[in-house]
Amino acid sequence: MEEFVQTVKDLLEAQQWQRLKALLAPKNPNDLAHIFAEFTPSERVVLFRLLEKQEAVEVFENLPLEEQQELLGSFKQEQLREIVEHMSPDDRASLLDELPAKVAKRLLALLTSEERTATALLLGYEDNTAGRIMTPEYIDLKSFVNVAQALEKIRRVGLDKETIYYCYVTDEQRRLIGAVSLRQLVLADPGTRVSDLMEQDLIYAHTNEDQEEVAHKIQKYDLLALPVVDREDRLVGIVTHDDVIDIIQDEVTEDIYRLGAVQVPEQNYFKSRIIAVSSHRLGWLLFLLVANTITGNIIIHYSNLLESVIALAAFVPLLTGSGGNIGSQTSTVFVRGLALKEITAKNALRLILREVWVGLLLGALLGTIVIIWAYWLQGNWLVALAVGLSLWLISTLATFFGSVWPLVFQRIGLDPAMVSAPFISTVVDVLGALTYFQVANFILTYGK
Amino acid sequence: MEEFVQTVKDLLEAQQWQRLKALLAPKNPNDLAHIFAEFTPSERVVLFRLLEKQEAVEVFENLPLEEQQELLGSFKQEQLREIVEHMSPDDRASLLDELPAKVAKRLLALLTSEERTATALLLGYEDNTAGRIMTPEYIDLKSFVNVAQALEKIRRVGLDKETIYYCYVTDEQRRLIGAVSLRQLVLADPGTRVSDLMEQDLIYAHTNEDQEEVAHKIQKYDLLALPVVDREDRLVGIVTHDDVIDIIQDEVTEDIYRLGAVQVPEQNYFKSRIIAVSSHRLGWLLFLLVANTITGNIIIHYSNLLESVIALAAFVPLLTGSGGNIGSQTSTVFVRGLALKEITAKNALRLILREVWVGLLLGALLGTIVIIWAYWLQGNWLVALAVGLSLWLISTLATFFGSVWPLVFQRIGLDPAMVSAPFISTVVDVLGALTYFQVANFILTYGK
Repeated sequence: MEEFVQTVKDLLEAQQWQRLKALLAPKNPNDLAHIFAEFTPSERVVLFRLLEKQEAVEVFENLPLEEQQELLGSFKQEQLREIVEHMSPDDRASLLDELPAKVAKRLLALLTSEERTATALLLGYEDNTAGRIMTPEYIDLKSFVNVAQALEKIRRVGLDKETIYYCYVTDEQRRLIGAVSLRQLVLADPGTRVSDLMEQDLIYAHTNEDQEEVAHKIQKYDLLALPVVDREDRLVGIVTHDDVIDIIQDEVTEDIYRLGAVQVPEQNYFKSRIIAVSSHRLGWLLFLLVANTITGNIIIHYSNLLESVIALAAFVPLLTGSGGNIGSQTSTVFVRGLALKEITAKNALRLILREVWVGLLLGALLGTIVIIWAYWLQGNWLVALAVGLSLWLISTLATFFGSVWPLVFQRIGLDPAMVSAPFISTVVDVLGALTYFQVANFILTYGK
Repeated sequence: MEEFVQTVKDLLEAQQWQRLKALLAPKNPNDLAHIFAEFTPSERVVLFRLLEKQEAVEVFENLPLEEQQELLGSFKQEQLREIVEHMSPDDRASLLDELPAKVAKRLLALLTSEERTATALLLGYEDNTAGRIMTPEYIDLKSFVNVAQALEKIRRVGLDKETIYYCYVTDEQRRLIGAVSLRQLVLADPGTRVSDLMEQDLIYAHTNEDQEEVAHKIQKYDLLALPVVDREDRLVGIVTHDDVIDIIQDEVTEDIYRLGAVQVPEQNYFKSRIIAVSSHRLGWLLFLLVANTITGNIIIHYSNLLESVIALAAFVPLLTGSGGNIGSQTSTVFVRGLALKEITAKNALRLILREVWVGLLLGALLGTIVIIWAYWLQGNWLVALAVGLSLWLISTLATFFGSVWPLVFQRIGLDPAMVSAPFISTVVDVLGALTYFQVANFILTYGK
């Protein structure tokens, strides 16, 4: 690919338009869209004009929104109309959504009234709902036609439709009553009625359903497309399988950001400004800072103890750090388990208990190691014992809270992924400091 | 669904077999497989026997491997043969893979020689490769047939094939030379030759290609199926779109586990034993424990300073904690950015610099807040200043290392997701303690 980019750049410089055209024509539009980022904005405009119309539309649909907007600015009125008119309605809706209202209005005005209605329909639904991501370009059939008539209709109208692999059957009120796959139609006898063939126990979505829900349905039932109905059960669009992966990736990015205590940004993180990036971090940092001050207060509270055995201070980061690590490990697997629905009301208690056992086991192991090291470092067996025993307790507390917090968050309606590594580490910091000084105080007082 | 489970349980208890049969028959196999977990093993066996054969196979294919194995044990020879013979070859291969060798061999012996060959073919490829996840049930066409003949062949053999939406064109040596979609065939004139219709610039995979690569190709090019060829470019199978989402979810789970410093388990985490779970955590914990002891050594090194100003100890957890949080935030977005290929060689340096600016900004903000709090807590302006200034420096170091480490890991061939929150927190702990005591030493020495 790098070689290809270089060749294109050379030809651009040499102004070899015909050779460039011949070079670009046989390329896959997805590939072209992908390498567009390698060129400067003005190079992109030139390249884009060298593409054939259908190829140009497909490349355009596959570009990131930022590059789409930038290209739009360079188009003449007529070219603008051609590109935007030929985009599929769902891609067009998400482009219009991102444009300044004035530009979007100008663009809408260029469309035929039919295309305008289709787009406006989608734009009328809320962000991240089935209505917004569906396409109205599906094939609908009546239940009384036979297979030959159905195939005839598919041949007539199929070219403009997003998929012809599922056709939907509607009644006189345009209510969805069934679906039939092209597979069934092709394999069936031409005289069979669609009503005898169609699946009636349909999986579908409502226009206001969350897109994540839509993605899960398509995933769970291995569908190529999912029909979308309005409040009156009338068929208004379909969501196709290729949208699902993007939705899942977005959802996962959200979860991963939350696990890292980063607020989910509206725009692509890597394209946001420094101020926006900072503000997406600040909320959690301030909250955690306040929690961290509690740890400071605990230490100040025990400063007499610290003054008499200064070596105790050396083990605070080790204990809170290890506790945080153990807690993060536990919360990570629990948050993911909840997202994949592997943790259920039925097995939650058993899994929490298992974590606590893991904490006891790991704590015993690490605690033993730490006793030896702590003795070697400062030569006091009592301090070493206090450190080791504390680590054992902290490890157990960390697995307990690391497994319970995500469940509590889910129960009170928050995203369990908000139990981030920083969050659980901070909770364990507070508990860890408290545990350590209590244990040390006890051992040093009674151990003498 | 809960209601349905309860009804089934009631009917089971009342031994109303006919009513149960009628209740189960119209249900979607994916739904049935999903709720199977709600029943006891012996209830499952009874329910399974009440299903019609085709329904039973589909439910079976959708069960988790553990439940499949458990059910297998209860089957009679004949029933066993029927279920396993009708499974699709890729699902069967992954089941056989998990069974004890002896059981797998017995099962293979039950199959017809044709089915046995298909399964053995898949089992011959390495885990997680295209060869292992493909199905040999595709439709192949010759290039010289026309559309009518192609459709005729699809009608004849289509029922047994995993998908009929893409057909692949092969030459006499069974080498892949093109592909044609059912959409093209249905929309074309019946007399057109397949050779005039077929796409020749094909996207395909080799049998030994990693399944993640396969998933990315299907995702990038919005395919319904991807053909798989062997070393001689002969077509041997296809991977269908519905396998992709599972692969992506597995991949994401791996990333999330790594980000939480949990070693990726071979078996489902929630089904592993306590010892296995603990051992998957121990590696990182031990490594991080060693790193944490460095922080302890640093503090011991500065114990004279601590002894003279005991209040300094109170701020260690706050500083290392906040530094760890800022570092985790940065590494999280960088790891995800690398996974989604949003960070490239071209923009990496700019993004690192941006992070450092973010670190300076956040550090200045948080540092100012902390100075006030630290003074309030212990009444010494010099200590408060040392704490605030340290936080500023630590915040900047944290964003620098949080962004650079994932890139370094990728460069040396490790998974960037191994730069987990615990890892970066521990690195920042060491740097943070060092920074703090240096700054405090300087300010307290020269500030007097």
